[in-house]
Amino acid sequence: MRVTQLFTKTQKQAPADEVSKNAQLLIRAGYIHKEMAGVYTFLPLGLRVLENINQIIREEMDAIGGQELKLTSLQDPEIWKATDRWDDQKVDIWFKTKLKNDSELGLGPTHEEPLIRAVRPFIRSYKDLPFLAYQIQTKFRNEVRAKSGVMRGREFLMKDLYSFARTEAEHDELYAKIQKAYANVYDRLGVGDDTFLTFASGGMFSQFSHEFQTVCEAGEDTIYLDRKKGIAINEEVNNDKVLSDLGLKREDLEKVNAAEVGNIFTLKDKFSAPLGLTFVDEHDKDQNVLMGCYGIGPSRLVGVITELLGDEKGLVWPENIAPYKVYLVRLGEDDAVIKASDELYEDFNKDGISVLYDDRDARAGEKFADADLMGIPYRVVVSAKTIAEGKIEVKKRTESDSALTTTQEFKKTFTKAS
Amino acid sequence: MRVTQLFTKTQKQAPADEVSKNAQLLIRAGYIHKEMAGVYTFLPLGLRVLENINQIIREEMDAIGGQELKLTSLQDPEIWKATDRWDDQKVDIWFKTKLKNDSELGLGPTHEEPLIRAVRPFIRSYKDLPFLAYQIQTKFRNEVRAKSGVMRGREFLMKDLYSFARTEAEHDELYAKIQKAYANVYDRLGVGDDTFLTFASGGMFSQFSHEFQTVCEAGEDTIYLDRKKGIAINEEVNNDKVLSDLGLKREDLEKVNAAEVGNIFTLKDKFSAPLGLTFVDEHDKDQNVLMGCYGIGPSRLVGVITELLGDEKGLVWPENIAPYKVYLVRLGEDDAVIKASDELYEDFNKDGISVLYDDRDARAGEKFADADLMGIPYRVVVSAKTIAEGKIEVKKRTESDSALTTTQEFKKTFTKAS
Repeated sequence: MRVTQLFTKTQKQAPADEVSKNAQLLIRAGYIHKEMAGVYTFLPLGLRVLENINQIIREEMDAIGGQELKLTSLQDPEIWKATDRWDDQKVDIWFKTKLKNDSELGLGPTHEEPLIRAVRPFIRSYKDLPFLAYQIQTKFRNEVRAKSGVMRGREFLMKDLYSFARTEAEHDELYAKIQKAYANVYDRLGVGDDTFLTFASGGMFSQFSHEFQTVCEAGEDTIYLDRKKGIAINEEVNNDKVLSDLGLKREDLEKVNAAEVGNIFTLKDKFSAPLGLTFVDEHDKDQNVLMGCYGIGPSRLVGVITELLGDEKGLVWPENIAPYKVYLVRLGEDDAVIKASDELYEDFNKDGISVLYDDRDARAGEKFADADLMGIPYRVVVSAKTIAEGKIEVKKRTESDSALTTTQEFKKTFTKAS
Repeated sequence: MRVTQLFTKTQKQAPADEVSKNAQLLIRAGYIHKEMAGVYTFLPLGLRVLENINQIIREEMDAIGGQELKLTSLQDPEIWKATDRWDDQKVDIWFKTKLKNDSELGLGPTHEEPLIRAVRPFIRSYKDLPFLAYQIQTKFRNEVRAKSGVMRGREFLMKDLYSFARTEAEHDELYAKIQKAYANVYDRLGVGDDTFLTFASGGMFSQFSHEFQTVCEAGEDTIYLDRKKGIAINEEVNNDKVLSDLGLKREDLEKVNAAEVGNIFTLKDKFSAPLGLTFVDEHDKDQNVLMGCYGIGPSRLVGVITELLGDEKGLVWPENIAPYKVYLVRLGEDDAVIKASDELYEDFNKDGISVLYDDRDARAGEKFADADLMGIPYRVVVSAKTIAEGKIEVKKRTESDSALTTTQEFKKTFTKAS
């Protein structure tokens, strides 16, 4: 993509009412547009990041046999009444609306109920289990306040996977497999080193649920982290019994701010029982299906990664999710520089190396500042000087020094990825 | 995907209240689940078809320079008041909801207003134009009745592209380019031969707008088609002046039912003027940006294609959008047949030929009926008999006779596509 063709532009200022670092940087870099508090449009660069995140999640869910489906936003009250989650006194973040005949509908804040109703016709016997189903789609939550940018929105994207098992042993096996897939996701997103499996309360159904927490200043949570062991506990289970059960020592724990980037739960028959999701077992007896649910917020991750990695110059994207791998800067307007830059742009495209080509007639300082603000992993400069040397000048977004290298040598960087 | 692992199953009956052919077949084949009238969940097979359609549209929009973004469902009343489209008396299909502080929000039935507000900060001068932006996302319309399955829903998927131009000549050039891209989309979707450019009223802004109409019994529209010329006019412009302007003769026109599968409009400054979307031209004068909008409904297309191609045995998918290219039937449970079938399944997967593998211990008739109901383009049978001959038995969904061939020969079918 040429910068002169990209319709978004960087901006010097974010809206005055935008207090979060993530929204400020993402707006200034032209990644998102604020519609209302907690409601953001994803502009082309932002959507590319979001879709890269979705794709990594999708690949990991597919790899463990997850089957993707797409539920609806409009919700039928009947199924939510069956689990006692329709009443605004019980669930206080509903957006509700009405059909022309005045009957009420809701906007899905989560999807356990409709998912169970959608899969119910297909589950009769033990032979129909186990399976994993997942969705990546918009959810709506009527939050009183929304000041954390895309980290906590009123409208946001969620991936939810649900497991359906026959026995507790089968559930535990699926749970462990999915937990591993989650760790893969964070590694591939580029935040694996800062993201820790965190033990949280399991509610009524198991001793623990698990969160994945990314250590970061802007995180709303406090966790107690054993860096050596690479695991943490959250505040609600910070007691002597849990420490002893997990083999942790209080003196090894570090109290840090963290942002929850995933949450996995054992549900047992909490939803399957009231909604009649049963199967006939090998002994011809009806049993409730045992469920788990496993969430990751892709749009929230855009915010957390911005908070974690963004610096005073702007965004910093891990290579796997960057909207483009290369920011190609043409320095100079004489024919030889234009020709060499155009050719390099075509060359990268041909090799499948995604590139944002700054073909503007603008000052070097402006181009470099935009490359930094947009957070593209590699800045490549073509100028009269680099042409004379038969090289290109490369700088990583995360480093301050540039170096001259050949195009051929530079391309090896991407051999693995592309 | 193995049929024993796919969590959906075919069903003998569709819900009794489901009157449309498309919803009946799609539900029976396990492609969709009905949440409420006009509100459907896309199950894994249905989502694969929908995403295949989206991908074809996306590729054609990208090829002409379209830049994808993702707007929000929640809508701020302010911008809709500016164009006088907030009042329920003026636009009678709004779903509305409220924030906790009681202020009203809408659910986007269309997106001109928020799109203009999102791009406005980036358009200052004539140098920032022209460009094309598009979105593929859920829209909500509070229809009084919803009886056409996924052809007309209360919640549905839309692709909308918008063009932004400086002059009428520039707009006309973009419009023609997009019209061509639309024709490519229908060709690639497999309905090009049944889909006709149809002249409709242009409203206040141009003599004509254009619809793309697919000739099909279930279509809600009536068009007058000149098959030789490959163009049609719709009812509202069926008059002598239009016939003469288009060089059509009344005696050449055939009156047919058709389903609208696309609609492209010239908007001029209808929305840009009230919303202040202006640019400074070469002579330092403020001008309104000239817009066009161009819609295709991917979820509606799933329904139209089902109505058009589905037969008494079930769904029939064009190859480009089928959820899987091949339905592999294992006939028999002895080791040699299982081994040969498993190997063929792996072999197809390795070559990138998507395959749904019926590995159930079930009767041939049941497997064949499901292959037909699901509408997979090629049915491949492996049995003791085919193994003895060193061949496989292939039948196209659209033909009644099967033929023996070699795996190698059969794979050549997909050389182009994969």
